[in-house]
Amino acid sequence: ERDKYENNDVAGVVTGLAWTQVGGDILFIESILSQGKGNLNITGNLGKVMKESATIAMEYIKSNADKWGIDPEVFNKYNVHIHVPEGATPKDGPSAGITMLTSLVSLFTQRKVKKSIAMTGEITLRGKVLPVGGIKEKILAAKRASIKEIILCKDNERDIKEIKEEYLKGLTFHYVKEMSEVIDMALTDEKVYNAKTL
Amino acid sequence: ERDKYENNDVAGVVTGLAWTQVGGDILFIESILSQGKGNLNITGNLGKVMKESATIAMEYIKSNADKWGIDPEVFNKYNVHIHVPEGATPKDGPSAGITMLTSLVSLFTQRKVKKSIAMTGEITLRGKVLPVGGIKEKILAAKRASIKEIILCKDNERDIKEIKEEYLKGLTFHYVKEMSEVIDMALTDEKVYNAKTL
Amino acid sequence: ERDKYENNDVAGVVTGLAWTQVGGDILFIESILSQGKGNLNITGNLGKVMKESATIAMEYIKSNADKWGIDPEVFNKYNVHIHVPEGATPKDGPSAGITMLTSLVSLFTQRKVKKSIAMTGEITLRGKVLPVGGIKEKILAAKRASIKEIILCKDNERDIKEIKEEYLKGLTFHYVKEMSEVIDMALTDEKVYNAKTL
Amino acid sequence: ERDKYENNDVAGVVTGLAWTQVGGDILFIESILSQGKGNLNITGNLGKVMKESATIAMEYIKSNADKWGIDPEVFNKYNVHIHVPEGATPKDGPSAGITMLTSLVSLFTQRKVKKSIAMTGEITLRGKVLPVGGIKEKILAAKRASIKEIILCKDNERDIKEIKEEYLKGLTFHYVKEMSEVIDMALTDEKVYNAKTL
Amino acid sequence: ERDKYENNDVAGVVTGLAWTQVGGDILFIESILSQGKGNLNITGNLGKVMKESATIAMEYIKSNADKWGIDPEVFNKYNVHIHVPEGATPKDGPSAGITMLTSLVSLFTQRKVKKSIAMTGEITLRGKVLPVGGIKEKILAAKRASIKEIILCKDNERDIKEIKEEYLKGLTFHYVKEMSEVIDMALTDEKVYNAKTL
Amino acid sequence: ERDKYENNDVAGVVTGLAWTQVGGDILFIESILSQGKGNLNITGNLGKVMKESATIAMEYIKSNADKWGIDPEVFNKYNVHIHVPEGATPKDGPSAGITMLTSLVSLFTQRKVKKSIAMTGEITLRGKVLPVGGIKEKILAAKRASIKEIILCKDNERDIKEIKEEYLKGLTFHYVKEMSEVIDMALTDEKVYNAKTL
Ligand SMILES: [Ca+2]
Ligand SMILES: [Ca+2]
Ligand SMILES: [Ca+2]
Ligand SMILES: [Ca+2]
Ligand SMILES: [Ca+2]
Ligand SMILES: [Ca+2]
Ligand SMILES: [Ca+2]
Ligand SMILES: [Ca+2]
Ligand SMILES: [Ca+2]
Ligand SMILES: [Ca+2]
Ligand SMILES: [Ca+2]
Ligand SMILES: [Ca+2]
Repeated sequence: ERDKYENNDVAGVVTGLAWTQVGGDILFIESILSQGKGNLNITGNLGKVMKESATIAMEYIKSNADKWGIDPEVFNKYNVHIHVPEGATPKDGPSAGITMLTSLVSLFTQRKVKKSIAMTGEITLRGKVLPVGGIKEKILAAKRASIKEIILCKDNERDIKEIKEEYLKGLTFHYVKEMSEVIDMALTDEKVYNAKTL
Repeated sequence: ERDKYENNDVAGVVTGLAWTQVGGDILFIESILSQGKGNLNITGNLGKVMKESATIAMEYIKSNADKWGIDPEVFNKYNVHIHVPEGATPKDGPSAGITMLTSLVSLFTQRKVKKSIAMTGEITLRGKVLPVGGIKEKILAAKRASIKEIILCKDNERDIKEIKEEYLKGLTFHYVKEMSEVIDMALTDEKVYNAKTL
Repeated sequence: ERDKYENNDVAGVVTGLAWTQVGGDILFIESILSQGKGNLNITGNLGKVMKESATIAMEYIKSNADKWGIDPEVFNKYNVHIHVPEGATPKDGPSAGITMLTSLVSLFTQRKVKKSIAMTGEITLRGKVLPVGGIKEKILAAKRASIKEIILCKDNERDIKEIKEEYLKGLTFHYVKEMSEVIDMALTDEKVYNAKTL
Repeated sequence: ERDKYENNDVAGVVTGLAWTQVGGDILFIESILSQGKGNLNITGNLGKVMKESATIAMEYIKSNADKWGIDPEVFNKYNVHIHVPEGATPKDGPSAGITMLTSLVSLFTQRKVKKSIAMTGEITLRGKVLPVGGIKEKILAAKRASIKEIILCKDNERDIKEIKEEYLKGLTFHYVKEMSEVIDMALTDEKVYNAKTL
Repeated sequence: ERDKYENNDVAGVVTGLAWTQVGGDILFIESILSQGKGNLNITGNLGKVMKESATIAMEYIKSNADKWGIDPEVFNKYNVHIHVPEGATPKDGPSAGITMLTSLVSLFTQRKVKKSIAMTGEITLRGKVLPVGGIKEKILAAKRASIKEIILCKDNERDIKEIKEEYLKGLTFHYVKEMSEVIDMALTDEKVYNAKTL
Repeated sequence: ERDKYENNDVAGVVTGLAWTQVGGDILFIESILSQGKGNLNITGNLGKVMKESATIAMEYIKSNADKWGIDPEVFNKYNVHIHVPEGATPKDGPSAGITMLTSLVSLFTQRKVKKSIAMTGEITLRGKVLPVGGIKEKILAAKRASIKEIILCKDNERDIKEIKEEYLKGLTFHYVKEMSEVIDMALTDEKVYNAKTL
């Protein structure tokens, strides 16, 4: 059984693409804020590298808060919790990086995530998006899950070109080099319904 | 030997359904408050994923305190301890998620848990309930333990339909999609006897 | 060589019953207070589950301090150290729960432990005592050690009924369901000699 | 090569008896104070049980400071470091307990350790000394090292009685039941030369 | 697939040379600052020795802040995050030491890194650069990646002399003994565009 | 390839003798101070026992600060970092103890280390130097590295006597029993060039 895209109207929920032993799948990155002192909680049966992605995303946002109009004060007034369902499945690897970044920027800006969009790509501290593996399997999973638009690293364009045209029907690809392009593409300028004032 | 349902009149004690190597069983999620600084203590010989469920439940409640009329101040004035007897049995997996959530909401609101109800389902940070495995074994255990009502994820309805009618006699099922539905179903509007003022 | 019961006149020393690879034995739970900030120290070559029992006992007492007239302020002014001799023997399991609870209540109330009494049973956060294994071996060890009274979970009564009458001569059994019954049975109303004023 | 007794005139250095794979040996427990906030540092390639002995000794002294006229304030003004040479040899077990206790009481009272004395025995939180193993090998090592007096648990007297008289010539044994007897026997009433004022 | 040199205009990004099981490669050391209290975060799937290199670089800079005109106050006002993409590849060893040092000095001075330069060498606390292995493979990778200048330890000059002249065409080597020479060579006197005022 | 002695004019750099699987070698203990709160950082791919040596050296100096005229205030105003190159080589054992002690005393007093001197020996908390192994291999390595003077434990004199005279030519040995003798022998009364005022 595969997951289906769900339209999530809350801030901080973003659809990623995963590549597991049993093929491609979509996954959700979920993040929430609670009053606190700036702690970062990470759950979802994640391995070391995937936890590092969450840390990198968080630190990148802290270091570039002005880029998205985030008041740096909020980092000290809230705890952040990032979770990746489903808990029974161990997950690892750097490819959820841009999904985590998008989740956290949505959370801190309360901007709405675009509908029917999914993404996969590694993040860096210098703002570049890096290519990832398993592209073919991930694309097939995205189609099954009714995803319409996909954000990939420019370097993954070659992987898409090797996939038969018929499998790509109905999908739009956005190739990016910079992490700021991901945010521009994935988040709308609208706030979520009942947006929190941070 | 299997456990029997016990009517617990204290806040924070909720009946869950577990699936172990020796079949289905019921289990109790117990939680208490003590004066403190907001620490979360988790015991009961639990594995990593089950401990994560407790963290997710706690953080979700912190982030959605207003949903159940909880004053956020209490999170800093008390320590929470969640325990899952029996200590000799190792336990893991995400399926106690909704039971833990219900236990903690009961604890923080001092609302009474409905009689003869049990539940099983994974929780998320976006408020969705996810389906879990071992449904048939869990249902049989629930019947043996004199449970009358069971809360399951809507996606687990198909598992119930595959069970012979005779095994289901006397059981009422509540299928939910959202975590807020679990709380509405499982907690009464009454306070427990001798409810604490937090 | 087996241990013999020793009359301990200091607060916090309680006799438990253990079941090891070489048969039943008695063991002592020892606890002391020192000026501090509420830390809990646990020693005695204990495994994870037995350490959890100590935490559960401590948190249960903190949450129910009024039940035994304990001023909650003391929990922040002292450190507690629980030790289970003998250090060379690894120990684990939940069955020392009620012994640890009794040790800590004696410590915080400075009430004297009844003479020649021993006990075995798992504790919970909802105040119930749960049954434990190895009852026959534990009873034989208790007799050898000159124990006169034994506290057991009501559900362990069936195990006693399977033991030949001759082995039980001279022993009185107290079957309990609630943790508060254990304390009523095991602690006298007298303070220990030279009781500390906490 | 075996160690020889060295007359140590500084506070906190006490001779113990050890039983290793290559036979009996003497060992030194060394402890020092430095300005700090009450931290306990333990080194010497020690296993879990031997580290626990150091913790038990420290906590027992904190809880019974008045017994030896120690001002409880000192526990917060100094860090304690306990070391057991030689670092290349892994060491474990509870038998250095009374040696560690003696070392720490000497340290906190600045009382001089008696000459040519060694000891071995497990400590408890209720103040009892427990018997230990390897007595014969330890005694032979003590003689080789020119030890004159040995402190043992009363329950180890039987082990001494099984040793041929000729091996015991020149050794005086002190059998104790209580930890306070160890201190009375091992520490003189004199302060060490250049005693620190704590 | 091998990495290509990228001209990075942000502070804190420096090109290193790595030697892996599949041959030589270039890698990027990335570091950023965020408001904080002086914590050091290290990610990139790094082993113990490579993490130690980051600590050594950081502590060396703290101890020699005046050497590069860094106000020691900044060490307490910011957190530093050092990352080494790509997260899927485990990395270890001391050879990224001078690259990490250069990254951090660039970060704290906001000085621009020289174009088309790469480096490899171990650092010490006494300011010496130590030689490293895999020089031949690293040089070939540097050429493929369009690197023009390479900084090496003076003791690695002999390794370069063993490489055929044709492989070295277009490459300039800088042999250093001291860590201060690395910084002089690798950082320009210019600030990066949009330099932060720390 | 073996290391050669380097004349280090900075405080805190001392030459030790090591015995590894591939024979004897010299090694450098490096230590530095940075503004801080008294933390001790230890790097160099060291095992547990060698890290303990660093802790023992540090604590011994804290406890005996007056012996070398060190103001105890400095221990709270600086962090200390001890590093042992080369990071790629795992190192362990207690024999670098006196070298670490010398490095730290040099660091805190800013006294210059004597030229062409090396040392090996275990330290204790009671101020004694203990003998170590691998003396023959270490001496050969010292000669190759142009060391002129060597500090050893008095008990290692017998090991020197078993080495052929011709291997010892040009080497002067200093046999010590106390840690204070090591410092007297290894540090000059001169301050290093550009000595820090602590
Ligand atoms: Ca899935
Ligand atoms: Ca992804
Ligand atoms: Ca059960
Ligand atoms: Ca459940
Ligand atoms: Ca026993
Ligand atoms: Ca027991
Ligand atoms: Ca020895
Ligand atoms: Ca001993
Ligand atoms: Ca690469
Ligand atoms: Ca490098
Ligand atoms: Ca070397
Ligand atoms: Ca050495």
